[in-house]
Amino acid sequence: MDATSTECHTTHGYISDKDRYLARLKRIEGQARGIHRMIDEEQYCIDILTQISALTSALRNVGLGLLDEHMKHCVVDAAKLGGDAAEAKLQEASEAIARLVRS
Amino acid sequence: MDATSTECHTTHGYISDKDRYLARLKRIEGQARGIHRMIDEEQYCIDILTQISALTSALRNVGLGLLDEHMKHCVVDAAKLGGDAAEAKLQEASEAIARLVRS
Amino acid sequence: MDATSTECHTTHGYISDKDRYLARLKRIEGQARGIHRMIDEEQYCIDILTQISALTSALRNVGLGLLDEHMKHCVVDAAKLGGDAAEAKLQEASEAIARLVRS
Amino acid sequence: MDATSTECHTTHGYISDKDRYLARLKRIEGQARGIHRMIDEEQYCIDILTQISALTSALRNVGLGLLDEHMKHCVVDAAKLGGDAAEAKLQEASEAIARLVRS
Repeated sequence: MDATSTECHTTHGYISDKDRYLARLKRIEGQARGIHRMIDEEQYCIDILTQISALTSALRNVGLGLLDEHMKHCVVDAAKLGGDAAEAKLQEASEAIARLVRS
Repeated sequence: MDATSTECHTTHGYISDKDRYLARLKRIEGQARGIHRMIDEEQYCIDILTQISALTSALRNVGLGLLDEHMKHCVVDAAKLGGDAAEAKLQEASEAIARLVRS
Repeated sequence: MDATSTECHTTHGYISDKDRYLARLKRIEGQARGIHRMIDEEQYCIDILTQISALTSALRNVGLGLLDEHMKHCVVDAAKLGGDAAEAKLQEASEAIARLVRS
Repeated sequence: MDATSTECHTTHGYISDKDRYLARLKRIEGQARGIHRMIDEEQYCIDILTQISALTSALRNVGLGLLDEHMKHCVVDAAKLGGDAAEAKLQEASEAIARLVRS
């Protein structure tokens, strides 16, 4: 994380929606705790799998939301500046997308 | 959840590995809490996305592990009994797999 | 592929739906050819990506369908026989599911 | 597809790698034909599923490659121009990413 990226996330980005993202993560943490309890209580596997699928979807959606914010702010700003910094930013975003698609 | 499924998960299944699964879920809960903190501290989006991808993979692996246990125990037992119960069990497993693949 | 698996797929399985699967694969092949043409004609990236997502979903659905058939026939038959053969069959199905989930 | 998008893909983009993409799509079409033949010859389900997973991965990689090209060219150009067109371009890219992640 270099100076550019630091500047990027402090002046722009997901801050506007920060409370909503924090609430979503709280819910995700609660879902993980719920799955822990289901296993501890030896609930039915299929019911646990349903909760795991729901949690995976919730996480994906948070990831897609953050990526959208990142592109609309950090990537656009970098693109305007152009040069190597822009290229590095785009490369970094592409790699994050690939990780998300493959995870 | 009917009588068969109740019997299934109490007499068989992931119990042998229960402690390991509980530990994995604790870790997943911790990862969710870590992502919450990263957003709260307004850390760099790409770093958060990397953690989200890691958490998604961890969840998928727990899901695949539980599914494997389920098939090796509940599905096999139901298959031996045959009839409608076996068919219902297989159908249920197929639907859980589809949800996992699509989540 | 051993004797058991050969026996399995010739006496059971997706044969009943074979024509439907063949038609779906023909369509998938056509979709791949369509994407080739879109790239050749230098059509808009986003439109090509939409077609790639559609083709990926179509493939996943064929995979899930075949897996369902496999479990309802080969896996059930192996489970009834029991022993090492049943265990190997289940292990093999689990690994195929994991590949499908991760692909 | 409006004037902007038309201009985008004709002046920039994946053209440089066009031959490589066309070759990859030819290979994907061949893989689809191979799976058709495996079903027709009633080959073992698990072997067919392995080929389906391989084809899905190949498609994903083409999608990620095209998306990368799109962002490095069309999105960057739109970002420089700014305004509504830039915003629309980013929105469109985000939606394509979401479809890819969810497919």
